[in-house]
Amino acid sequence: MIKPGTPRGFRDFGPNEMAGRDFIFNTIKDVFRLYGYQPIETPAMELISTLTGKYGEEGDKLMFRVLNSGDFLQEAREKGIDFGNHLELGKYIAEKGMRYDLTVPFARFVVEHYHELNFPFKRFQIQPVWRADRPQKGRYREFYQCDVDVIGSDSLFYEFELISVITDIFERLGIHVSIRLNNRKLLMAIAESVQAAGRFSDLTIAIDKLEKIGLEAVVSELAAKGFSPASLSEINEILQFNATDNIEKLRFIEEKAGHTPSGKEGIAELREILGYCSKSPKNIPLEIDLKLARGLNYYTGAIIEVKAKDVEIGSICGGGRYDNLTGVFGLPGLSGVGVSFGADRIYDVMKNLSLFPHSADVSAEVLIVNFGEEEAAHAISLLADLHGAGISAEIYPETAKLKKQFSYASAKKIRFVMLAGKDEIAQNIYGLKDLSSAMQYQMSLPEIIHFIKKSNA
Amino acid sequence: MIKPGTPRGFRDFGPNEMAGRDFIFNTIKDVFRLYGYQPIETPAMELISTLTGKYGEEGDKLMFRVLNSGDFLQEAREKGIDFGNHLELGKYIAEKGMRYDLTVPFARFVVEHYHELNFPFKRFQIQPVWRADRPQKGRYREFYQCDVDVIGSDSLFYEFELISVITDIFERLGIHVSIRLNNRKLLMAIAESVQAAGRFSDLTIAIDKLEKIGLEAVVSELAAKGFSPASLSEINEILQFNATDNIEKLRFIEEKAGHTPSGKEGIAELREILGYCSKSPKNIPLEIDLKLARGLNYYTGAIIEVKAKDVEIGSICGGGRYDNLTGVFGLPGLSGVGVSFGADRIYDVMKNLSLFPHSADVSAEVLIVNFGEEEAAHAISLLADLHGAGISAEIYPETAKLKKQFSYASAKKIRFVMLAGKDEIAQNIYGLKDLSSAMQYQMSLPEIIHFIKKSNA
Repeated sequence: MIKPGTPRGFRDFGPNEMAGRDFIFNTIKDVFRLYGYQPIETPAMELISTLTGKYGEEGDKLMFRVLNSGDFLQEAREKGIDFGNHLELGKYIAEKGMRYDLTVPFARFVVEHYHELNFPFKRFQIQPVWRADRPQKGRYREFYQCDVDVIGSDSLFYEFELISVITDIFERLGIHVSIRLNNRKLLMAIAESVQAAGRFSDLTIAIDKLEKIGLEAVVSELAAKGFSPASLSEINEILQFNATDNIEKLRFIEEKAGHTPSGKEGIAELREILGYCSKSPKNIPLEIDLKLARGLNYYTGAIIEVKAKDVEIGSICGGGRYDNLTGVFGLPGLSGVGVSFGADRIYDVMKNLSLFPHSADVSAEVLIVNFGEEEAAHAISLLADLHGAGISAEIYPETAKLKKQFSYASAKKIRFVMLAGKDEIAQNIYGLKDLSSAMQYQMSLPEIIHFIKKSNA
Repeated sequence: MIKPGTPRGFRDFGPNEMAGRDFIFNTIKDVFRLYGYQPIETPAMELISTLTGKYGEEGDKLMFRVLNSGDFLQEAREKGIDFGNHLELGKYIAEKGMRYDLTVPFARFVVEHYHELNFPFKRFQIQPVWRADRPQKGRYREFYQCDVDVIGSDSLFYEFELISVITDIFERLGIHVSIRLNNRKLLMAIAESVQAAGRFSDLTIAIDKLEKIGLEAVVSELAAKGFSPASLSEINEILQFNATDNIEKLRFIEEKAGHTPSGKEGIAELREILGYCSKSPKNIPLEIDLKLARGLNYYTGAIIEVKAKDVEIGSICGGGRYDNLTGVFGLPGLSGVGVSFGADRIYDVMKNLSLFPHSADVSAEVLIVNFGEEEAAHAISLLADLHGAGISAEIYPETAKLKKQFSYASAKKIRFVMLAGKDEIAQNIYGLKDLSSAMQYQMSLPEIIHFIKKSNA
């Protein structure tokens, strides 16, 4: 018999990985809730018509499609479709596709439930998505996205609020980050000021590759796209500019591109956001980054990207303002802003820097040794009291050698082993061994509960 | 443009439903953890070879299959498969299927990770599953299962432990239940004692339908399957027997079927489990139910089913002991026991009986009214202090009419509205309106924090 496995690019998560992942998800959710964001969930499968055409050609190719139930060939047969052509046949045998991101389902959700929602609608959504990408190190076919968005308001206060959310989350996780901020309107202003407004998309796509391919390659890509030598020299100067001070960066770009309408708006927006940040008592690691472009083309205002300072791993959070997310589903004019946290990369950063707290790893806190039938019967009420006090505890299920019971505890990272033999039961004083220190104590049950709770604090 | 929707049988969950669902999932997880169970997750997609043949013919039909990526017809073309036959073609164009339950993936997980696991392995798993069932009221194509199992021990202490877990969970949820317990070995003993051991499966399948179709129909089904009149009269007597006392029930079945080896074992096992329950300080609503059969054929020992007392909705939790879950993947001899909680039905019960606590419904606790630019700037530090104290709070994003800001709060079920205008800021004394009582207070920020925390306690 062949040993069974998962499909390529798919993963199991055992208890240790789950402990770390839950710590991340819970931290993220706690902060989202603190700011008044509410959870929603959408189905794993959407109608293929909801998904196709929303992610470009690449997305349509990488989308997982679900075979129709029953005789899936019937419709194609009736319509006389060419069974030899998979692209053609594919349209008739799979009417559902797997969730590819959380943005398109959210847009569909907002349009479908428009009249039940209270705007501005502040939602978060933490669910897996599926992409038939070629699996490689750090890239999987199933991974979680953690999205937080507010839709139905163009107040820039929400840009600040999300920057605040990001600050709190990474502070709680213990990851040092830099939060980079730019505005699509400034990129537009650059395009305008070099008389290339019509090539805005070429410009952002090229700049987005800056870190990957370097300045020289970006400039030659733009040259190939038809940017003039004069405009290239201007763009080159902007991309080479460096300053540590956000205000100085704004002054520089104002000089370069502040005379166009987009430039004026973009600078005013960044100033307003910086203004809010300056009122915050938090130490917000915000950096204006005039070279930040973001790949997705639905962003229309502020764009945000977060990087870990102590690990080279790319962006661990990113997002921005979009003015027309729901337009594609027939509901124009709803502005929103949101960011998405990359749980898998955050996990890798925390693992790499050993940032997971010990408590994330706990299975049970107490194992009661099983000394025999009578002692186990007594342990039932000890367990009820420990559970009642919120202490996770279990008894070894049979009367095995002490060594075996202790190694079960240590393999499961259970810190305390409780000894409740005949003598202990008679005296109501139990043995408690702390496996982390090898210290052993004799205490009553209330004392044990108090002691364990204190050790956790 | 057509208003977009979800595929038939699939659901969105908005903030209100999510609040209730999270309350259920968190309660279940908290109790699982208290008893030392650890989470795992398996992928949404498994290799089709892992899934097929594990759920009977019906299961193979209802399983969602995922179309291979790229030219999915290539293999079928090369092998000269008949493209007109969907059953045949289906085998070559879809190598992955969607998770159909959590039991088979768990068995695959245990076999694949056998050497990394610590036995007895106590795991829980809360994930959605997908079935292409005909959608109807209360039956969906995507729904969550919450499974808890211990594998690698045949100790009956775990049957008791799971009964204890069930008791705690429904007590915390506020649902009055009866936990019904039987043993497959007693059903085998009945079959043996009427000389129909070879028809054990027919017997359990028929008895499993008892509540649905009634005693008469069960007896005629058994007659049709070839049970003799004498055996039918015996079975009839057993199924009609009623007593309120568990010990009396055991005595009755001992008399009827206790002379066979299976009967002896089954009775001894139930006695041991009842013995543990009698030592528990908890009030365990356990009922021996000699008519309980459970549909699935992998159960070999104790079987458990839980029903809500105050709502007619069928089983909301069930499971049992299985002796050979992983045998199908080449690893025989691992005994386990587990139960599964039906989150959707539990949600319906709680909704029906209005059991969700108010706190499950909270979006944010405080809305700060936006009086203008300067006041909003001041609110930024108020928000930081509220968040720091663990109080969820937000500010209305723009200077709108008070009425609009208050209706935002009340639509979002935000209880407290905080007024921080110029005068309040100057005096450091803020207005706080409790929308639940319409009372209004004047307090400093520390007083407000204290007041809100007290209101939550």
